[in-house]
Amino acid sequence: MWQLFQFPLCPFSRKVRLVLGEKGVAHELQRENPWERRDEFVDLNPAGETPVMVEPDRGVTLIGSQPICEYFDETVDKAQMIQGNAVARAEIRRLTEWFDQKLFAEVVAPLLNERMLKRVLHSQSPDTNVLRHAMRVANGHMDYFDYLLDHRRWLAGNSLSLADFTAAAHLSVIDYLGGLDWRGHQQTKDWYSVMKSRPCFRPLLGERMDGIVPPKHYDKVDF
Amino acid sequence: MWQLFQFPLCPFSRKVRLVLGEKGVAHELQRENPWERRDEFVDLNPAGETPVMVEPDRGVTLIGSQPICEYFDETVDKAQMIQGNAVARAEIRRLTEWFDQKLFAEVVAPLLNERMLKRVLHSQSPDTNVLRHAMRVANGHMDYFDYLLDHRRWLAGNSLSLADFTAAAHLSVIDYLGGLDWRGHQQTKDWYSVMKSRPCFRPLLGERMDGIVPPKHYDKVDF
Repeated sequence: MWQLFQFPLCPFSRKVRLVLGEKGVAHELQRENPWERRDEFVDLNPAGETPVMVEPDRGVTLIGSQPICEYFDETVDKAQMIQGNAVARAEIRRLTEWFDQKLFAEVVAPLLNERMLKRVLHSQSPDTNVLRHAMRVANGHMDYFDYLLDHRRWLAGNSLSLADFTAAAHLSVIDYLGGLDWRGHQQTKDWYSVMKSRPCFRPLLGERMDGIVPPKHYDKVDF
Repeated sequence: MWQLFQFPLCPFSRKVRLVLGEKGVAHELQRENPWERRDEFVDLNPAGETPVMVEPDRGVTLIGSQPICEYFDETVDKAQMIQGNAVARAEIRRLTEWFDQKLFAEVVAPLLNERMLKRVLHSQSPDTNVLRHAMRVANGHMDYFDYLLDHRRWLAGNSLSLADFTAAAHLSVIDYLGGLDWRGHQQTKDWYSVMKSRPCFRPLLGERMDGIVPPKHYDKVDF
């Protein structure tokens, strides 16, 4: 069976888990804290980052959320994630990259650093200036979500796609870490409520990261 | 005809140009300095980054090097870039992402900032500590290139692929900015010499960025 190396607040692992759930790919979770730089894990992935997927019986290793999602979209027909003609597929990949790179670097990474890594590695408190700045930037990203959803049924067009699952994965981590103010973002809120109610999302929302408590609304579909 | 918005030292635009050259896709270059944040360009791409491709007659806009390369690999059969079975394709995408994200963030971006943006935007000199650090990190990346080429014919496996063109695009920018010390990296040097001798590479090597002179060996196939 496939093994997925991940930790509960890794947005890229969440993206992969949502896709595996939609496609019905059986897998086991392997807890991996990449900041510990475990030798066996760095041997698997020289970048030392989650997610990594391994199929021991077939000797296959897949590394990185986008290569993993493209792999399962090519090999499992159910719940196509990057669909439509080549132009539609380019738009899905553009937005997926926007969330994985821009939203991650500007919001998710600083929040994870302040609220998780500083605590785990140095027993330090978060820098409230960094938190406030990340929340302001998150608000700007949610304006862009609102804009897209004003013009489209789903984030990348008429179909539910990898762009929606990727965005939801990152938003769920930001929300867990208290970085979202939902007021004034009704379109995004409605869309996220639909995403949260999908069966693939439920297991994620039930998990907790050791010592970090999410806000009360975090796992509620109506929030 | 396709228009490609780019500037000479943009590694992501170079990656796209190499792929277009290999595939024989006719296109016009449009010079774009993303740091000027021209309104019409930000309207095209809200991220404000190159490369962007536009086909005015068909009303098509493609944004970002990976979505663009995937698009042309799906629509133009010649010179397949992401080829082989799904596992081989995952490995090509993993390394492409490594170069586009890790190599770019750790080496290309700081060099572009110190040697190009500081000069263009603030008429400042580069910080030699940052340059030295980027060169050390570049050396570590070249060790990884050597390792891969010790075990494989091309970077991602038995076939020339998008991973090779992506790596060559980033290396060419680092080399232009004087960030590479080729001593002790014979495998990478031999591979890069082969990449440089491909017809798609020649136009890139002949171009210059206003006011920045590359080292003498930069455009030579034997260096």
